[in-house]
Amino acid sequence: MSSLSLFRDDGDTRAFGPGETIFVEGDDGRHMYVILDGSVRLSVTGRTLEKVGKGGVFGEMALIDASPRSATATALAACTLVPVTAERFKSLVKESPDFAIEIMRIMAARLRSMDRRL
Amino acid sequence: MSSLSLFRDDGDTRAFGPGETIFVEGDDGRHMYVILDGSVRLSVTGRTLEKVGKGGVFGEMALIDASPRSATATALAACTLVPVTAERFKSLVKESPDFAIEIMRIMAARLRSMDRRL
Repeated sequence: MSSLSLFRDDGDTRAFGPGETIFVEGDDGRHMYVILDGSVRLSVTGRTLEKVGKGGVFGEMALIDASPRSATATALAACTLVPVTAERFKSLVKESPDFAIEIMRIMAARLRSMDRRL
Repeated sequence: MSSLSLFRDDGDTRAFGPGETIFVEGDDGRHMYVILDGSVRLSVTGRTLEKVGKGGVFGEMALIDASPRSATATALAACTLVPVTAERFKSLVKESPDFAIEIMRIMAARLRSMDRRL
């Protein structure tokens, strides 16, 4: 399963131009984003953590632990995003264990990549 | 919910003495562990990533993405652990969305702590 398939037909999307800021480290976070098109850079104090492409998700952490954004997200290329509220996120986890496992897989990949930087 | 409540009555536990190695970075990982008692140090190339105490879990990443262990786990104090297989982990995610969210919360806490080290 790719997250993309669950969100491809969402009518409610947001568009960002290259270089545009999506959210800033420390902001309150009310949405996770699924990238329908384009790519996004995640950074902490100016250092790139990750580039996320089409079909990827980011911003899930603020929904999981209701804490401020841990990183800044910037559109690298023009992108189209589906915002996912905490409520929808929780109902997806309930209804689709595959979705839950995929979110964990994304987080595991981020943790492994961080471990390698230590 | 605490993970502990799901595992407290598990008959199948493993005991480790202080300083004993539970698994080593690079090993194949077939279990996640829930700490019934004691505490565990997670490290990468000798550097401590985290200390996990009673009620905590570790080793979940190898179940999620079927990759080798990303860190070494060592008993800090004498500890009693419940090993959880990939099969059981997946059925817990299916049956208990709260369990899934708690695992995500643990991973989010680890990611936030790593972000702060960058």
